[in-house]
Amino acid sequence: MPPTRQLHLGAFMRPVSLHTGAWRFPGAWPDANFSFRHIKRFVQTLESACFDAFFMADHLAVLNMPVNALKRSHTATSFEPFTLLSALASVTERIGLIATASTTFDEPYHIARRFASLDHLSDGRAGWNLVTTSNPDAARNFGRDEHMEHDERYRRAHEFYDVVTGLWDSWADDAFVRDTESGLFFDPDKLRVLDHKGAYLSVRGPLNIARPVQGWPVVVQAGSSEAGRQLAAETADAVFTAQPNLAAGKRFYADVKGRMERVGRAREHLKILPGAFVVVGDSRDEAQEKRALLDTFVHDDSGFASLSIALGHDVASFDPDGLLPEVPETNASRSARERVIDMARAEGLTVRQLAQRVGGYSGLQMVGTATDIADEMEQWLVEEGSDGFNVMFPYLPAGLDDFVAKVVPELQRRGIFRRVYEGTTLREHLGLPRPGNRFFENR
Amino acid sequence: MPPTRQLHLGAFMRPVSLHTGAWRFPGAWPDANFSFRHIKRFVQTLESACFDAFFMADHLAVLNMPVNALKRSHTATSFEPFTLLSALASVTERIGLIATASTTFDEPYHIARRFASLDHLSDGRAGWNLVTTSNPDAARNFGRDEHMEHDERYRRAHEFYDVVTGLWDSWADDAFVRDTESGLFFDPDKLRVLDHKGAYLSVRGPLNIARPVQGWPVVVQAGSSEAGRQLAAETADAVFTAQPNLAAGKRFYADVKGRMERVGRAREHLKILPGAFVVVGDSRDEAQEKRALLDTFVHDDSGFASLSIALGHDVASFDPDGLLPEVPETNASRSARERVIDMARAEGLTVRQLAQRVGGYSGLQMVGTATDIADEMEQWLVEEGSDGFNVMFPYLPAGLDDFVAKVVPELQRRGIFRRVYEGTTLREHLGLPRPGNRFFENR
Repeated sequence: MPPTRQLHLGAFMRPVSLHTGAWRFPGAWPDANFSFRHIKRFVQTLESACFDAFFMADHLAVLNMPVNALKRSHTATSFEPFTLLSALASVTERIGLIATASTTFDEPYHIARRFASLDHLSDGRAGWNLVTTSNPDAARNFGRDEHMEHDERYRRAHEFYDVVTGLWDSWADDAFVRDTESGLFFDPDKLRVLDHKGAYLSVRGPLNIARPVQGWPVVVQAGSSEAGRQLAAETADAVFTAQPNLAAGKRFYADVKGRMERVGRAREHLKILPGAFVVVGDSRDEAQEKRALLDTFVHDDSGFASLSIALGHDVASFDPDGLLPEVPETNASRSARERVIDMARAEGLTVRQLAQRVGGYSGLQMVGTATDIADEMEQWLVEEGSDGFNVMFPYLPAGLDDFVAKVVPELQRRGIFRRVYEGTTLREHLGLPRPGNRFFENR
Repeated sequence: MPPTRQLHLGAFMRPVSLHTGAWRFPGAWPDANFSFRHIKRFVQTLESACFDAFFMADHLAVLNMPVNALKRSHTATSFEPFTLLSALASVTERIGLIATASTTFDEPYHIARRFASLDHLSDGRAGWNLVTTSNPDAARNFGRDEHMEHDERYRRAHEFYDVVTGLWDSWADDAFVRDTESGLFFDPDKLRVLDHKGAYLSVRGPLNIARPVQGWPVVVQAGSSEAGRQLAAETADAVFTAQPNLAAGKRFYADVKGRMERVGRAREHLKILPGAFVVVGDSRDEAQEKRALLDTFVHDDSGFASLSIALGHDVASFDPDGLLPEVPETNASRSARERVIDMARAEGLTVRQLAQRVGGYSGLQMVGTATDIADEMEQWLVEEGSDGFNVMFPYLPAGLDDFVAKVVPELQRRGIFRRVYEGTTLREHLGLPRPGNRFFENR
């Protein structure tokens, strides 16, 4: 019998909870987002539970929302990912460290070099969350008024990926001989100049750092559009995706793995990890109460702004304590709008409750006992809805500590999650092969 | 009586010795340039000696030299500065951490953000070595065939500096109130949008990270041209400069401090720190022997290539063991050429010895006992040749350990170098004021 397929777990953080009310939850650390001491403690706890990776969300601007809502947010500012993850590399030993970096507003030489450097500093634990950045506020921080059109962004992203991986291959793995006797530091036959000239980029190389420990750091993508799925199927090692439920997750999983097969890649060489917002209680009621209490900490300024954006209609005239009235048709995203309206109807939420849900977190959630959550995760794994999850914690530190203390042991007991790290690199944690070097013999 | 003016010491490293033969010296660690374990040990040793800062040189390309010489170099590749210094921030407590970053090949939003992040991660120890990058090999790694002309590079650098410091001022120091009761995370009156539109750059802001601990990280410059000196006098907190001897150092010192006065800055608000290559022995003879031995590890491939570049003439036809013959006039830099020829004549060096000197290190050096070196450093300080030095170590670890064990105590005994860190930030170590915020009351 083949070994049981294993669950992979990332911790998706910004670099704390993504829930707007998290910092106000009783016992939470309001300054967690900007305290290295706290973040170090979180990541060391995740490492003690053998998480595959700490995954840092990022934006290249202060979040794009009205200042009245923004001033309620604990994630408007934070650390920059490369600096934070490098600092964390020194105080951890095994957990993967995934940084978000944009192909639209940065240079491939910088990106290739920084990830290679992080990979060496962490002994092979770096991952790149490749994003194309569609935020117009970010564009204005980089000298552009007009944002690049979607398909063009993806074409540039693909070329950018080719250049970055090409730069990572500048040196053979055994290029540095350091022979003090003859005075030969590296073998020049093991150095290649990329000399890329393409539609968007012109980059000569070679990279001024040795080939990464992992060959290439792990590449994560999050695109869900046609172009995004195809790019992921062709190039990604892992996909971070938002899926509202298991049925949708299974469709996405089958689609991306099918695309992989069509381009000749093995299905297991890409891990699909949907985001999951997890609230653990000792009973279902306790978990539900925590979840409901958390939403009450979403201020009306945030909640009503977020709900108005989602519906494409200003909700100021609605009775906040009444049920959601009929909402006129608008030009807001139809699917987002319908999802929100359906949620209100299905759960009988008042306008304020709905606003708090949307302003806090309204994607896939798992709320219950450790057994409930392990059941749900196992079902996704077995039914091929995913290869694991990017877990989002509701508040810190307790939401993270509860997951580590209660859910992880239950997953381990079932034999679907590691008890110790078997490998040392993030690729090894994820069960991914080490890429060969395009210029030299695979080794 | 006013307190004795104090010496400031940086350790200038790439991130090891700049001497081409260093990695071959007996007892040296050949892989020091690319071992975080070794570099951590060096920087912790420097911190135990109360150095002001670890200063990381950088290039945005593999070094520009023929591959036959390059393959002898232990500094052709290394870590990327932000990732390395952030990793070091976690394992040190007081020493300043200065990273080189280019105003020509990077974006001000990224630079402002990364230095702010490093400053927060290190509790106020970040410094920016602002360089304009004139290396054509770097240009080709960033999609440009033609390099930007010198004066234009400096005009862009000045604007870049204005934008970066403006972004650092995006938030008042007390913007983040984190009032869990009312749900107010930050006070929106304490946030400003820079909205810069200039000749070279257009950057909206605000920066998505709190104002740095130091207000602004320390800004170091190294330009020695007319434009470079003027930019430094107007904006820099410290200057790293190459000065061949005390007389030249005094002229440079008087010039830059005079320029500061003319733009209304206090002389003591910029520290001038020439590079000094220091070899310590228990006797003068021992120090000279070490220095000479080190040069023998410069391979002919490196030495003759470097000497040919310096003279603008291929030295292959010269007798390597004879004295330097007459060298035809060329279009090489006249001052560099004459300096090298004068050195050969003054010291009676053979062609090979001269090549080894030029291929290794031929700038300001201090070779002798701890007393000799302390005498020389004290003379520079007292006669206003400098405010301290960026020390370059000949080989590692012994060259660094000797300096820390022998020279530092002698400087301390004379009362011109600290025995303990009195402040916590790099600005405090250097005796520099914390800049006010352009948008808010100084605080």
